[in-house]
Amino acid sequence: MVMKKKIDGMECRTEKDSIGSKDIPEGVYYGVQSLRAAENFRITGLSMHPEVINSLAQIKKAAAITNCEIGLLDKHIAEAIVKACDEIMEGRLHDEFIVDPIQGGAGTSINMNANEVIANRAIELLGGQKGDYSIVHPNDHVNCGQSTNDVIPTAGKMTSLKLLKNAKKELERLHKALCDKGEEFDTIIKMGRTQMQDAVPIRLGQEFKAYSVAIQRDINRMEKAQEEMRTLNMGGTAIGTGINADEAYLRRIVPNLARISDMDLVQAYDLIDATQNLDPFVAVSGAVKACAVTLSKIANDFRLMSSGPRCGFGEINLPAKQNGSSIMPGKVNPVIPEVVNQVAFNIIGNDVTITMAAEAGQLELNAFEPIVFYCLFQSIDTLAYAVETFVDNCVSGITANRERCKELVDNSVGIVTALCPHVGYAKAASLAKTAVKTGESVRKLILEEGLLNEEELNEILDVKNMTEPGISGKELLLKNME
Amino acid sequence: MVMKKKIDGMECRTEKDSIGSKDIPEGVYYGVQSLRAAENFRITGLSMHPEVINSLAQIKKAAAITNCEIGLLDKHIAEAIVKACDEIMEGRLHDEFIVDPIQGGAGTSINMNANEVIANRAIELLGGQKGDYSIVHPNDHVNCGQSTNDVIPTAGKMTSLKLLKNAKKELERLHKALCDKGEEFDTIIKMGRTQMQDAVPIRLGQEFKAYSVAIQRDINRMEKAQEEMRTLNMGGTAIGTGINADEAYLRRIVPNLARISDMDLVQAYDLIDATQNLDPFVAVSGAVKACAVTLSKIANDFRLMSSGPRCGFGEINLPAKQNGSSIMPGKVNPVIPEVVNQVAFNIIGNDVTITMAAEAGQLELNAFEPIVFYCLFQSIDTLAYAVETFVDNCVSGITANRERCKELVDNSVGIVTALCPHVGYAKAASLAKTAVKTGESVRKLILEEGLLNEEELNEILDVKNMTEPGISGKELLLKNME
Amino acid sequence: MVMKKKIDGMECRTEKDSIGSKDIPEGVYYGVQSLRAAENFRITGLSMHPEVINSLAQIKKAAAITNCEIGLLDKHIAEAIVKACDEIMEGRLHDEFIVDPIQGGAGTSINMNANEVIANRAIELLGGQKGDYSIVHPNDHVNCGQSTNDVIPTAGKMTSLKLLKNAKKELERLHKALCDKGEEFDTIIKMGRTQMQDAVPIRLGQEFKAYSVAIQRDINRMEKAQEEMRTLNMGGTAIGTGINADEAYLRRIVPNLARISDMDLVQAYDLIDATQNLDPFVAVSGAVKACAVTLSKIANDFRLMSSGPRCGFGEINLPAKQNGSSIMPGKVNPVIPEVVNQVAFNIIGNDVTITMAAEAGQLELNAFEPIVFYCLFQSIDTLAYAVETFVDNCVSGITANRERCKELVDNSVGIVTALCPHVGYAKAASLAKTAVKTGESVRKLILEEGLLNEEELNEILDVKNMTEPGISGKELLLKNME
Amino acid sequence: MVMKKKIDGMECRTEKDSIGSKDIPEGVYYGVQSLRAAENFRITGLSMHPEVINSLAQIKKAAAITNCEIGLLDKHIAEAIVKACDEIMEGRLHDEFIVDPIQGGAGTSINMNANEVIANRAIELLGGQKGDYSIVHPNDHVNCGQSTNDVIPTAGKMTSLKLLKNAKKELERLHKALCDKGEEFDTIIKMGRTQMQDAVPIRLGQEFKAYSVAIQRDINRMEKAQEEMRTLNMGGTAIGTGINADEAYLRRIVPNLARISDMDLVQAYDLIDATQNLDPFVAVSGAVKACAVTLSKIANDFRLMSSGPRCGFGEINLPAKQNGSSIMPGKVNPVIPEVVNQVAFNIIGNDVTITMAAEAGQLELNAFEPIVFYCLFQSIDTLAYAVETFVDNCVSGITANRERCKELVDNSVGIVTALCPHVGYAKAASLAKTAVKTGESVRKLILEEGLLNEEELNEILDVKNMTEPGISGKELLLKNME
Repeated sequence: MVMKKKIDGMECRTEKDSIGSKDIPEGVYYGVQSLRAAENFRITGLSMHPEVINSLAQIKKAAAITNCEIGLLDKHIAEAIVKACDEIMEGRLHDEFIVDPIQGGAGTSINMNANEVIANRAIELLGGQKGDYSIVHPNDHVNCGQSTNDVIPTAGKMTSLKLLKNAKKELERLHKALCDKGEEFDTIIKMGRTQMQDAVPIRLGQEFKAYSVAIQRDINRMEKAQEEMRTLNMGGTAIGTGINADEAYLRRIVPNLARISDMDLVQAYDLIDATQNLDPFVAVSGAVKACAVTLSKIANDFRLMSSGPRCGFGEINLPAKQNGSSIMPGKVNPVIPEVVNQVAFNIIGNDVTITMAAEAGQLELNAFEPIVFYCLFQSIDTLAYAVETFVDNCVSGITANRERCKELVDNSVGIVTALCPHVGYAKAASLAKTAVKTGESVRKLILEEGLLNEEELNEILDVKNMTEPGISGKELLLKNME
Repeated sequence: MVMKKKIDGMECRTEKDSIGSKDIPEGVYYGVQSLRAAENFRITGLSMHPEVINSLAQIKKAAAITNCEIGLLDKHIAEAIVKACDEIMEGRLHDEFIVDPIQGGAGTSINMNANEVIANRAIELLGGQKGDYSIVHPNDHVNCGQSTNDVIPTAGKMTSLKLLKNAKKELERLHKALCDKGEEFDTIIKMGRTQMQDAVPIRLGQEFKAYSVAIQRDINRMEKAQEEMRTLNMGGTAIGTGINADEAYLRRIVPNLARISDMDLVQAYDLIDATQNLDPFVAVSGAVKACAVTLSKIANDFRLMSSGPRCGFGEINLPAKQNGSSIMPGKVNPVIPEVVNQVAFNIIGNDVTITMAAEAGQLELNAFEPIVFYCLFQSIDTLAYAVETFVDNCVSGITANRERCKELVDNSVGIVTALCPHVGYAKAASLAKTAVKTGESVRKLILEEGLLNEEELNEILDVKNMTEPGISGKELLLKNME
Repeated sequence: MVMKKKIDGMECRTEKDSIGSKDIPEGVYYGVQSLRAAENFRITGLSMHPEVINSLAQIKKAAAITNCEIGLLDKHIAEAIVKACDEIMEGRLHDEFIVDPIQGGAGTSINMNANEVIANRAIELLGGQKGDYSIVHPNDHVNCGQSTNDVIPTAGKMTSLKLLKNAKKELERLHKALCDKGEEFDTIIKMGRTQMQDAVPIRLGQEFKAYSVAIQRDINRMEKAQEEMRTLNMGGTAIGTGINADEAYLRRIVPNLARISDMDLVQAYDLIDATQNLDPFVAVSGAVKACAVTLSKIANDFRLMSSGPRCGFGEINLPAKQNGSSIMPGKVNPVIPEVVNQVAFNIIGNDVTITMAAEAGQLELNAFEPIVFYCLFQSIDTLAYAVETFVDNCVSGITANRERCKELVDNSVGIVTALCPHVGYAKAASLAKTAVKTGESVRKLILEEGLLNEEELNEILDVKNMTEPGISGKELLLKNME
Repeated sequence: MVMKKKIDGMECRTEKDSIGSKDIPEGVYYGVQSLRAAENFRITGLSMHPEVINSLAQIKKAAAITNCEIGLLDKHIAEAIVKACDEIMEGRLHDEFIVDPIQGGAGTSINMNANEVIANRAIELLGGQKGDYSIVHPNDHVNCGQSTNDVIPTAGKMTSLKLLKNAKKELERLHKALCDKGEEFDTIIKMGRTQMQDAVPIRLGQEFKAYSVAIQRDINRMEKAQEEMRTLNMGGTAIGTGINADEAYLRRIVPNLARISDMDLVQAYDLIDATQNLDPFVAVSGAVKACAVTLSKIANDFRLMSSGPRCGFGEINLPAKQNGSSIMPGKVNPVIPEVVNQVAFNIIGNDVTITMAAEAGQLELNAFEPIVFYCLFQSIDTLAYAVETFVDNCVSGITANRERCKELVDNSVGIVTALCPHVGYAKAASLAKTAVKTGESVRKLILEEGLLNEEELNEILDVKNMTEPGISGKELLLKNME
């Protein structure tokens, strides 16, 4: 029996829990516990990530099927629950999830939100009235064999896997775009710089190739880190000891969930450990953060190399994607790398939050999963989106200023390094110093001093050769060493 | 003249900028630059903070008025701009601000979004067609005398001030709630603990009083920090040198803005410095972070003192706000303190992001203001919301378990400290060790050893006295010292 | 020819470099460049980590051997260099390394410090006078085929591997100590707690077992992360292009270094990438940080469970290692867990520093390796030392208060969870609420209500059973479901 | 009576505490508790900061004097304690402080180390034998009226004040050096850059002036923050309630300490709060961190502006302080700014550590003061040392490349901004675009289009004028508006 009344003209049903009674708008699928939580936590004003909601639906579906298989849940109830979950996975009922992503209580609120929505939809499917939990009960049926404390970490890990998959796709596109530019720019010789000072020549293509290799390493690292997300504590229930989880359920729940979600998932070896420790999320955040470091470094380099157009390095051009200034006409700014930087900074800050939250766990449970999830999902999502715009609106459209690059190399003193094996470090240093001071070219100074002749210099100072391993003019050197 | 066409059945106008042409849905107020930015930056999927939008409207209004006063803007254009700004400040047109809060370009996108929306609304008010920028131009009229680089830091500071004001209100409510509890619990004697080990008696009211003092210090600290937000670089234009800002404008813009916004605002002493450095935001974030530390510490204490109900400290009860568990019936958890902890962790992570972004500024501008604002506004807002629920759903409903508190003190060994002045540290230590080992009371052991008599002990071991400064039984001590 | 003079009665030799001349105390092995660096960087007042110095000696030895093999270095010079390196690896000459660990210049200063010390010792071994670099030259001979930019990252990675090996040894000891306690405490039933509130029973041994599993995961994670340290950029020289590195040298240097150091080391696939990117150090720091999180969580649990002796949880006793208070006699504090916490906090802060430094790299080189190394080595070292004292002075001496643990379980309401499958969540919640309010036992309330009989209750409320998976009284349940 | 024996030929005395007996080398002044702590905490291998040791001596001296004044300490004991303290303050006995700075126990170890050293030295001064605590007792006499929990926060605050004073001195030198350069470079016109792209002209002197203003703001901010360090909890003893602290002592101890140390110090309004909360250290660290952000930004700018010598911005020259490369002769790197960056990164990481440690405090005490102090003192000290070398080895020797700066401005497109008021943003943008594409000068394009004549252009495009507020050619503009 569902009690009803009208409040301010709105039809309401009355629901009860241990705290007391509460009026719920008639039409909604969430219940008393969801509403209390929504009122208690008005923090961000945002909703749970849709993939968390989908993951919860998958978990509840797997649990209903498992409980039915082992005889602890009536078939028609199980079927109704499964159907409700399927609807959620299709994107329906998402606006019934009303709990703020930053919430107290280790995720009990969002778990109960799922339990209530699914129960009420199942009740409806079975011909009952929303709120008549004698038909399908949020705890006894939808949550059967489960606890927030195994459901929520599991939902968090499943969501991470889904988001990481998307991020990987974008990173692979970036990898390819950088490789392509690596080939395109392979014949462009430019000055390499260390500590912002002219060093020795390098090819622009080598630089882009190196970026691609760094990104590949990040892809591999994130791939390894996400393995930690495949290990679930489903079946551990309240504190990992498996209280109220039938042994048959315990054996079947993770394989069933893996099948339903089409994901590689395994049960944790020690469910107690897996229930209380969030270090796997710290590890994933760490890998995402390392990738953010690489991305930000590349973005910084792009901003440096494209500085100008006339008063900077001017070696490359980033595609013009929007007006750069409201006051300075014609100014085009590196806005895409700048957003990559900012996303990276945010990911690095999120990593601190995630780390603190993981550290703050106590005894049998870490109550701070909601903030871990909020930050981690934001980190992965924004990384993916930033990489997407980076590829499409920046990397793939970069062009090189071949002449400018060549001019800088020809004009530089750094090529003196190739002379070291021939004239010794001290002599080379002295030449370099004179060149910088007088503005003369190194080549001319050497000829003047008669240290090497023109032919020898041509062999040694071949800038293309300097971009590959080897001692320029090695035969000359060996001859002189005899 | 505005060019129009139909795309997929939707009326569009065509706008042009330096990048090229772009079709804009006919009905919207934003223009080509906003749309490009929205497409370039799909990062969070969120919108700018409404108070940023309001602040931009205030700035544009002040600029229009100022430019009109000094003769650089036609009166009817100025009036139309002012009217458009007023509408925005009333909450209209906010959904025309389509740029992601995490955006490249130092805020040019959101500044142009404001310029375009205001221009188009002003055009409309003047009887023109949206897109006909010959009537009111986003750059030449709305942005007149301004640059993103003075408008955006100014909008950020004004927004911070507004949000801090709200946070202060909530913190003052918390301060009062803690003071009230301090009085209410002033006669409840309980065990003090250091390093989680029994120390010496304290009154529960003293603890709450101490919390209130800490919160007051945070209020003061945030108050001081926000002074840094009152110093604006309006008039500095592109890089703080004031190029294109008329001197009369320069003198009037900040006073006009202060008047319009009814805020205490002053112009920076060095506009170049104020344009490129974001350390004032770092300082504000630091103060917010220090407050988060205090809040989290209090939340931790509440969770400790309310641990139980039967297997923990059990000294206080937090109001039950929602069911604590989906599997463990009757369990009530400290969900409100937990959300306070999580908000604190997030603020601490945001502080790292803000710090990194501020550090990354280069030369005449810090391009990373958008992420600074995104994180700082989130920090201040979530702090305020967390404190609000902390006061209403936790602190004000806390009750004390007077008997349990007394029992623990009576049963404790820690009171032996009061004996130190009388029997010396070494003897007292030996008594304490015996008491812990045997389970005997300290009092009994002393009487057995004949160290002090019952009357003396009664004077020395008065637990209420131990909660105030002074040597228990001092006269006894002085007599013995003679 | 070495120029000499007396300054303030001290014999000095005069050395020259590009900057100018400088007097060096006669007896020392370091030279002009080391001394300049020592004067430029007086930051911490500390010395380089001894394992960095040893690693540099190994690298210089490997380079000398390789250069000799390929005919670019005279055999007698190579032998003298090798001998000097061997002496350093034996621990001699370490006080000649005078450069501050926090130094500008991407490690050029410490590389030159090594080059100068080795050169001067080699000169001496060859019968020359210190400073007579015509015999053995720091750059041309000791640094032959190398650059700071391949030597220093290599030294950093080798050092990391050595320190991680030691840390692993200590973590394995901790793992074993926790496993041992897991077995020792396997029969002690105690209350499990989630969110600091009484949950359901668990065995103390299960808790320690779970800790051991978490530590094992950290060991594995650090093992994987350190693989990133085996990939070296030796041979890349200045910017990874291998300028001035003979191809034969390039092929042989890493295998030679691996052999000399007896470490698994490989050459990077892309030397340009490996020269400019420090993300591998970020990854290692991330793994160390994740371990710190686990350790701190365990330390926190120990401090909670040992809280008391009389006014806290009182479930376990940590060994008394020192007096806890200067004023409170007999107080014993959890000082060892506390130092573990603090080391963890420091490691987490260091991770931020390392991340920022890695992000700040520009173009062909990251100039901020010195701070990365300083922080990373401190993190690994202090982790190892903290774990060492944790094992020896805390974990291995922990004892349990079996009676206290049992008493808390018997007294608790949380066991009501096991009734859920039998009476439903709502009924169980109502019973729990009454029990907490009235102080009655759950068992008595059920009997009074006639919900279950005594025999049934005995089967369902077996606390030992509750610590293992399964539904208590499942047969009873299935019978009732029929 | 002191028990003695010989161990391995070393004379030892035997001391006892609650934990048991321990042999102490005969000659040393520390005692059993110091030695236990040194053995328990082998973490960094370093010693306490000397200013902590001096501060402890000042506190112990003040307490002895106060206790004597109020009749709780014999005059001859007090005098011996005072003399021992004076010796420590003169720099003697510092190597008797053997406890690691990272230690468990909220500083009890270092407090007892001070108590034992002072007691034994006082005993010796009174003609007794070290270890004969019947003469002067570490707890009953040296620590009289005190607790670790008021002594250690007090010592931490006093130390912070001393170090901040030194840091301020260095920052003021930096401020002056920047101001001087601001004047020296006031006539050098160069290109301003926003987002690394050419913007509008600025004078190099304006840039240095802006740096100086930012540093002044940091000085002011640190000055304000350190006010938090003047508020002491001396007299609060164990938990701030003042147990065992005589009321007369309570009133006098802080004024006495202020007098002895010659520092402005006040007693906290709420001693309980002041004992348990470390947020004042978070606030100070926050101010130091904000300063680090400013310094790092300036260092970044220097590295950018001095990039080259031939392939970079090349606007300024940093003094050459050491050879920049072991392989690239003649290379001079910005090593001093680089060390400033690294110190800044470390300070930012330390701030995270300090924040976490402050957050982790529980109930009546924060046990994590040692790591807070370790990190904070390192932050302040390294900031001061980095600034010292920054001033002396970098800023004061910077020179400008006037010609290069002028050339870049003359060659730039950014000056088109000044045309905006005259030709409108859209027209100016179109001109700029053409100029960049064709390589033509803006001036020429305008003349070709006949938009303005040469005279008008000369007035508008005066680059010196562009570096000051105002609309170039305003009269022209007003005339045209008519």
